[in-house]
Amino acid sequence: MTEESQWFGEAPVYGFQQRYCVRSCLHSEVTPFQTLAVLDTIPFGRMLILDGAVQVTERDEFLYHEMLVHVPMLSHPNPERILIIGGGDGGCLKQLLQHPVIEVIQAEIDQRVVEISKALLPSVAANAFEDPRVSIVFNDGSSFMMKHKNTFDIILVDSTDPIGPAEVLFSPAFYIGAFAALRDDGILVTQSGSPVLQVKEFVKTFHSVRRSFPVTRQYLAPIFSYPGTLWSFTLGSKKYDPLQLKITTLKRRIMDRRIRTHHYSSDVHTASFSLPPFIQHLLEDEARDLSAFPISISG
Amino acid sequence: MTEESQWFGEAPVYGFQQRYCVRSCLHSEVTPFQTLAVLDTIPFGRMLILDGAVQVTERDEFLYHEMLVHVPMLSHPNPERILIIGGGDGGCLKQLLQHPVIEVIQAEIDQRVVEISKALLPSVAANAFEDPRVSIVFNDGSSFMMKHKNTFDIILVDSTDPIGPAEVLFSPAFYIGAFAALRDDGILVTQSGSPVLQVKEFVKTFHSVRRSFPVTRQYLAPIFSYPGTLWSFTLGSKKYDPLQLKITTLKRRIMDRRIRTHHYSSDVHTASFSLPPFIQHLLEDEARDLSAFPISISG
Repeated sequence: MTEESQWFGEAPVYGFQQRYCVRSCLHSEVTPFQTLAVLDTIPFGRMLILDGAVQVTERDEFLYHEMLVHVPMLSHPNPERILIIGGGDGGCLKQLLQHPVIEVIQAEIDQRVVEISKALLPSVAANAFEDPRVSIVFNDGSSFMMKHKNTFDIILVDSTDPIGPAEVLFSPAFYIGAFAALRDDGILVTQSGSPVLQVKEFVKTFHSVRRSFPVTRQYLAPIFSYPGTLWSFTLGSKKYDPLQLKITTLKRRIMDRRIRTHHYSSDVHTASFSLPPFIQHLLEDEARDLSAFPISISG
Repeated sequence: MTEESQWFGEAPVYGFQQRYCVRSCLHSEVTPFQTLAVLDTIPFGRMLILDGAVQVTERDEFLYHEMLVHVPMLSHPNPERILIIGGGDGGCLKQLLQHPVIEVIQAEIDQRVVEISKALLPSVAANAFEDPRVSIVFNDGSSFMMKHKNTFDIILVDSTDPIGPAEVLFSPAFYIGAFAALRDDGILVTQSGSPVLQVKEFVKTFHSVRRSFPVTRQYLAPIFSYPGTLWSFTLGSKKYDPLQLKITTLKRRIMDRRIRTHHYSSDVHTASFSLPPFIQHLLEDEARDLSAFPISISG
């Protein structure tokens, strides 16, 4: 690494920053919705960045997409109709299509994300956009979802952070709409940020989902290109509890559907729901001051 | 964050770097064994740095020390005599003394680490050094250990990375000596680096421990101030398997010994052993090329 190396890092939070050595900038534009860039980095290969935040990288996209998709899909005995909100890079689609789904609708607000991902990060979607079971709607995912009732088995929110175009996807009204758009045994999952660097988002998402869904669970996974690495997902379910799922049933579903993964496994499924006490604690008191860096409990 | 902000980060690995905004440098010296610095940082409070690598921070030390100590201690029904190698900051000692131990010997090669930690990071040890059950030996931990046979219930290796003074602590001869120094049902745990940024160390430690111990297990924890966050520990056991431990037994031991933790719990104990397939994979073929960044399997 020379002095002249170029680095990219998201804006620091609480004085904490991860950064990545950049080989070159492959693309940069301002779309009608956000800024969009693709960098070629040493640690993660090509990296898609929206409004300054890393969305997906060639090398570690499997961590995020496997955990977003397979946890709800395998918690459901027969998920046939799926809605993805966001997810324009196609990584979510690629994982979904391993399951015997009938129809996947993807509502992505920004057509340029799909176009640039297909052109510059083709391994992420791996032709999933061409699958006949898939339709893409270039529209606001929330409005699209609100028009549907009792339609989907699974809704996946694969969005940017709750600032900018994705803000609406984290509102209480959104979760009420998602509940209505799901069938009677449907499951919603949304990415819910870092439980240490984005505590407010993490805690707010939990309480909002819990107000709408009888079963609310949060689970964790390491995603090395996201700030703080440890990342959270929030699941709301009308009927099935991913924690009550028998391990034999889960293993049988993985085998029957021939799911192939690098991070997800039946063991990782269960382990990912084991929130450490210091994170569990954040969820217990809604009135808690969440402005401080949460890992300051020691001493 | 202004342009003039001071930052500290460990040397980048594979073009990946975490860095921390620094309020001030509280201390810096060259000891007979290594360089030693204490920085006051925004995200983690005070931070002890040896040879350029973060050892411990006020705010997230609990993550590392709870996982290093309570996993082996609670896997053992009655651990009475403990040897710590390294661990001069005292965080390991503090956690150990929650258990009803009879004697703890700490062999720390560098007296300055203890002196500076006591002076500048007093919350880490919280007076554990003053406990009558504790003796400190300022000596090479490996030589000290080699003089003992069938003596310790638990040996904890709380060392720096395997470059510099700690290199000997990762050699096959060390693990043979540890096996001999442990009683017939003893357990060894060593930190074994990042499974993504220090793959060689992670894999080599696994195979070296496995050559000496009938039960070898690796477990993971997020440690936010360590590069890549996801960290590994390698456990070698003569008799008890921490994965075969009944959850009711584990919960009873936690209650009986009145163990109080922020990260560790009976659930986290079990979950921490669930290695994702892409990490498990690294361990399967000892001849594998480990020079590449391991998270490059996708696409």
